[in-house]
Amino acid sequence: MTSDDNVQVSVLGLGAMGSALAGALVRAGHPTTVWNRSPGKADDLVARGARLAATAGDAVRGGRLVIACLLDHASVREVLDPLAGELAGRALINVTTTRPAQAREMAAWAAQAGVAYLDGGIMAVPDMIGRPGASILYSGSAEVFDQHRPLLDLWGGGTYFGDDAGLASLYDLALLSGMYVMFAGFMHGAAMVAPAGVTAREFAAMAAPFLTAMTDGFQEYAAVIDGGDYTVEGQQSLEFSDLGDLLAASSDQGVSTEVVAMVQRLIQRQIDAGHGKEGFARIFESIRRPG
Amino acid sequence: MTSDDNVQVSVLGLGAMGSALAGALVRAGHPTTVWNRSPGKADDLVARGARLAATAGDAVRGGRLVIACLLDHASVREVLDPLAGELAGRALINVTTTRPAQAREMAAWAAQAGVAYLDGGIMAVPDMIGRPGASILYSGSAEVFDQHRPLLDLWGGGTYFGDDAGLASLYDLALLSGMYVMFAGFMHGAAMVAPAGVTAREFAAMAAPFLTAMTDGFQEYAAVIDGGDYTVEGQQSLEFSDLGDLLAASSDQGVSTEVVAMVQRLIQRQIDAGHGKEGFARIFESIRRPG
Repeated sequence: MTSDDNVQVSVLGLGAMGSALAGALVRAGHPTTVWNRSPGKADDLVARGARLAATAGDAVRGGRLVIACLLDHASVREVLDPLAGELAGRALINVTTTRPAQAREMAAWAAQAGVAYLDGGIMAVPDMIGRPGASILYSGSAEVFDQHRPLLDLWGGGTYFGDDAGLASLYDLALLSGMYVMFAGFMHGAAMVAPAGVTAREFAAMAAPFLTAMTDGFQEYAAVIDGGDYTVEGQQSLEFSDLGDLLAASSDQGVSTEVVAMVQRLIQRQIDAGHGKEGFARIFESIRRPG
Repeated sequence: MTSDDNVQVSVLGLGAMGSALAGALVRAGHPTTVWNRSPGKADDLVARGARLAATAGDAVRGGRLVIACLLDHASVREVLDPLAGELAGRALINVTTTRPAQAREMAAWAAQAGVAYLDGGIMAVPDMIGRPGASILYSGSAEVFDQHRPLLDLWGGGTYFGDDAGLASLYDLALLSGMYVMFAGFMHGAAMVAPAGVTAREFAAMAAPFLTAMTDGFQEYAAVIDGGDYTVEGQQSLEFSDLGDLLAASSDQGVSTEVVAMVQRLIQRQIDAGHGKEGFARIFESIRRPG
């Protein structure tokens, strides 16, 4: 299969992200058909050369490659279920935010309908599409990913995780979990120093490089987790990682203790189970095996 | 006051960190006296040229500059309280891990005793002392910090936060909060992808650069927090930040939801208070004003 740089593409869904994806295609000169449930969203794209389809079916018939960027999984089913016949023989890339189980459901649906299915998770805000730093995770059909690689590169750096269509979404949600939790940790630190007259910007100037440096620790923890032996010498023990001082200082500063208390509970469950002398990485087991 | 590169230094406390600090001084040729409550910890340092003091008082009398690196605040009081007279006229740098209130208590104690007091928070593990990446936070006496800057640089990059002796410890604990919470978020992500056969090392290879890139967001959130207006255009709203998909996917994967649920609670409290259309940075208010 060769790369098809001039493929007819249809984009279903013109929210902020769908419009950004379609805009990058139009800018690169791809023949692009667009459709949105509510009207008016396509005006700018049409002015720049996109063709507006009157119905979703019309849009599907207009593209060898169909991109779905809709509100949620239910919207995807609602729009595409009646179009299974039309989609047969075409390629579908679904970048709607969905859970892994929903991505796998779509892959099964597509297989039944004779549609080549690639699922995508976009690690970027719409403004970042087509610019450095935008990263998009894919899983499902390797053929679709390989054939349309030049087109996908117009949006951002693509990574393919394998033929399990749920993997991209799973990675996406796992990375987003890490991000939201990190943001909460940053906000907690900023709240702690605020009563001392330290601005959030001053704290951010210290926290960003410090936390960046600390991401080096991920590989060390990961090696211990993968190795399965939390007793390896040289690790900081769970007992040594007691967060009592952080909790007390948070209270002293009049701020909520719940952010740090979450970590303390993960630590304490492992200590209570008799693992206090083992490494901090063992909090992974508190998360992996709840209750 | 001029820099005194050859000052007589005494180090009280030879745990892993105290030994690393004393080792860096000995390596640089500083006349260094060491003391530890329990014997045997000094052998290696003495072999390299340090002088072993028989008592803490003997050590204090041997140094113009005294470094305290003890187990905790209680140990500091226990060792130094009887030596107030001996310490008068000397400089004391206390790098024992303490809370801000305890650092301020020591500063008041030192002022009473006629001791110049600098408090330090070490953002490094002992192995990092004297190597790139070690960062040490200081607050309290600007004179002690300025005069001994060349000596402090032997340990790592130093940052001085002002004459409130509690500030270094406050920054230290605030940054460590961010770090532990970030680690928990990383572990959560690794636990989510594990059932799909993704190793923790594979996930770490994605998560470290992604979270590093996301630290860019700290300054944007901080600007909103400092500005005090969470309604500024262009922010991701709290309602849009609903973590329901992350929680459901975590449950689907059989892992604990408590890590992400902590963030969801911070979001929900602001939505419940009527701020759902405002920016995500508003979770800062959930932390700053608990209950």
